[in-house]
Amino acid sequence: MFTELKERVLAANLLLPYYQLVTFTWGNVSEIDRNNGVIAIKPSGVAYDKLQLDDMVIVDLEGKKIEGKLNPSSDTQTHIELYKAFAQIGGVIHTHSRNATIWSQAGLDIPALGTTHADYFYGDIPCTRRLTTNEIANDYERNTGKVIIEEFIKRSIDILAIPSVLVSGHGPFGWGKNANDAVHNAVVLEEIAAMALATRNLNVGIKIQQELLDKHYFRKHGKNAYYGQL
Amino acid sequence: MFTELKERVLAANLLLPYYQLVTFTWGNVSEIDRNNGVIAIKPSGVAYDKLQLDDMVIVDLEGKKIEGKLNPSSDTQTHIELYKAFAQIGGVIHTHSRNATIWSQAGLDIPALGTTHADYFYGDIPCTRRLTTNEIANDYERNTGKVIIEEFIKRSIDILAIPSVLVSGHGPFGWGKNANDAVHNAVVLEEIAAMALATRNLNVGIKIQQELLDKHYFRKHGKNAYYGQL
Amino acid sequence: MFTELKERVLAANLLLPYYQLVTFTWGNVSEIDRNNGVIAIKPSGVAYDKLQLDDMVIVDLEGKKIEGKLNPSSDTQTHIELYKAFAQIGGVIHTHSRNATIWSQAGLDIPALGTTHADYFYGDIPCTRRLTTNEIANDYERNTGKVIIEEFIKRSIDILAIPSVLVSGHGPFGWGKNANDAVHNAVVLEEIAAMALATRNLNVGIKIQQELLDKHYFRKHGKNAYYGQL
Amino acid sequence: MFTELKERVLAANLLLPYYQLVTFTWGNVSEIDRNNGVIAIKPSGVAYDKLQLDDMVIVDLEGKKIEGKLNPSSDTQTHIELYKAFAQIGGVIHTHSRNATIWSQAGLDIPALGTTHADYFYGDIPCTRRLTTNEIANDYERNTGKVIIEEFIKRSIDILAIPSVLVSGHGPFGWGKNANDAVHNAVVLEEIAAMALATRNLNVGIKIQQELLDKHYFRKHGKNAYYGQL
Repeated sequence: MFTELKERVLAANLLLPYYQLVTFTWGNVSEIDRNNGVIAIKPSGVAYDKLQLDDMVIVDLEGKKIEGKLNPSSDTQTHIELYKAFAQIGGVIHTHSRNATIWSQAGLDIPALGTTHADYFYGDIPCTRRLTTNEIANDYERNTGKVIIEEFIKRSIDILAIPSVLVSGHGPFGWGKNANDAVHNAVVLEEIAAMALATRNLNVGIKIQQELLDKHYFRKHGKNAYYGQL
Repeated sequence: MFTELKERVLAANLLLPYYQLVTFTWGNVSEIDRNNGVIAIKPSGVAYDKLQLDDMVIVDLEGKKIEGKLNPSSDTQTHIELYKAFAQIGGVIHTHSRNATIWSQAGLDIPALGTTHADYFYGDIPCTRRLTTNEIANDYERNTGKVIIEEFIKRSIDILAIPSVLVSGHGPFGWGKNANDAVHNAVVLEEIAAMALATRNLNVGIKIQQELLDKHYFRKHGKNAYYGQL
Repeated sequence: MFTELKERVLAANLLLPYYQLVTFTWGNVSEIDRNNGVIAIKPSGVAYDKLQLDDMVIVDLEGKKIEGKLNPSSDTQTHIELYKAFAQIGGVIHTHSRNATIWSQAGLDIPALGTTHADYFYGDIPCTRRLTTNEIANDYERNTGKVIIEEFIKRSIDILAIPSVLVSGHGPFGWGKNANDAVHNAVVLEEIAAMALATRNLNVGIKIQQELLDKHYFRKHGKNAYYGQL
Repeated sequence: MFTELKERVLAANLLLPYYQLVTFTWGNVSEIDRNNGVIAIKPSGVAYDKLQLDDMVIVDLEGKKIEGKLNPSSDTQTHIELYKAFAQIGGVIHTHSRNATIWSQAGLDIPALGTTHADYFYGDIPCTRRLTTNEIANDYERNTGKVIIEEFIKRSIDILAIPSVLVSGHGPFGWGKNANDAVHNAVVLEEIAAMALATRNLNVGIKIQQELLDKHYFRKHGKNAYYGQL
């Protein structure tokens, strides 16, 4: 059952080493089947070069395992919180990719500094607040999701217009229309995180002009987009 | 028609992933056939590993498509402006290569700091002014070309002596005798952009001596050149 | 004799170039057979792409060669000191991996800055004090081991909870349950060393919350661990 | 004629792209046959992936071509000066490898900061003074050699104990017992140049202890060396 879903999730997970977003098992991608109310996700702690189709785990939106021999990713509850809060997203990703993790550890937003950023992210990429002692001690992974959601609501950010977040002291999470799209956005995030580090070093106060951010974002997104083969 | 032109432009575009100048579809190369008044350019948003000869798009110097099923690069009008302004150039390139983009985002010229730079670029590589709100809103891609041209005229720079430019808040454009030469110059730009970042960090005020800049540039370029198998 | 031990140690040494932890011959891994009181270690100065099973050297815990044609690693006495002091460890590694060596040269601990660190290291990774003139002049390699041991005792660090150390002015040593595990930890060390360099540059005073360090370390280690397929 | 010499020099030049020391044609290696008073060197401006045995150029110590169809490297006179001044060296190399070039552009010595450095270089790696206007205008490549020699004599440096130099505003030159050894030293130089950049950033005043520099250099070099399979 859920073979096509598992195939897509397996393929998306295998892109993580391909795009050099992971060391060892430090990442996971999932995709949701909203009709059946289930998600497929990578098993916890299994090496990418050993991953097989049958290793993919199917869980429902309570986190209960529906299919699969292995334990799902330890971050499964974070994925579930995001799927529940945001009906528009179809895939979720978590990595410890180097440059995005650096910004997360520093506890800082990645500022929008150029059109590379603007082509995919309509504004700064938020870093969450720190979790409280209680949020860490009890239901940590679920609370990680809740803190992300809180940040997007507090800042009134459209979840699809900024498809990544930095969890303070931890690393990036992201999403997309499906698992593949979530990986795509994570590759972009890692590249702009690297660029932003060095740009800030060269010229600490610089920001992209709002008009240029608008132009680049909307030439690729929305009803007036004209980039690509639409 | 234009098969050889399209073959050269396809080959030049395929060098972008080979030299690690691009992530996904973030770059494009074109070449002009001045006798026929047309350019061949990469289609917009098509992955490099899927690019075929017939995907190349032929447009005239008004930007009208002459041949090809796909939409040309969204940056086509920038290429056209450059070809119109500078009769000496035969190929144009645009990428978001990491280090050159960092300087563009910082809004700073890449200073000439050593002979690696001087072997290819006769002086600092200019960063344009920012586009105005109006230039961004109306005919943005054409205005990107115009701002580049304005910068070279204002500074009295010989277009072939400094075959790259940084567009402020955006990224590098470049050119050459043909498409392949434009790619070659973009590879050099990326390397010297990386070196300049770290050099500035070590010794912020340093500059190359003018005599050394002259020596290295002219031992490779012009009538007294003696580098290579001329 | 000791064929399986030598096979494991050969395999572990070959992971060093695979994970890009070494330039030329700048690293070595060993494993101990505590029942027989011997260790297998890489020979000194032999290129990784030439390493054969029979090149592995077996020495006893006095450093006396038991088997093998070649000289053991010049760092053998450091390995032996660590095995003698810490009965829990089964493999030892030394490299000059770039980022960990940078912290060693700077003479600074790698601070715990995020969950990537916390997943493997329960606190800052210590940098030893400098060796004295006398410690360098006489029995240098053995004293390198002694200085490491002194640091862990002085700070009351559990050797398995922080399986790496930086030797001041030199580079990283590490360990694990066996040779393969020691390499695994060295890969992690190199990645977190790189992240910590840039994080400190972005936000110099930042530290991970103690609660988050605890949470991530103990969800992967100890009796309440729930990461992976335990 | 000189087939074995040319084979060694070809092989050494092909190591430059293998070790990622060059972009395009930005490097050259030579070796001297002191009995016959000739050197073999890479031809000028020929791509590494096209290099053939017959492309190698044989010149005498006046720079006169003895064998070969192509022009020798434009840096040939620098190589010759070094061979003439230092009878102990058998191979010479020049590259624009990124990190060593950064230090050259900054006009700064690479300080000895750790044992990685001390294993190969007995002290700081000197950066030359700038060439004068006259030295650049007349016989530039020969003067580049002269300025290197001046620096080593002025500082009383043993040419084999520090087998690299940074030419101010330009890049690294190096040498060794033969062409292969010169490449080996250039790989080490590039790695320690990278480490030194980041170490200085972390802890600007730090230096290796003299005793540790001595220990590591002399455990690999000289009559009391005990590293490797001597």
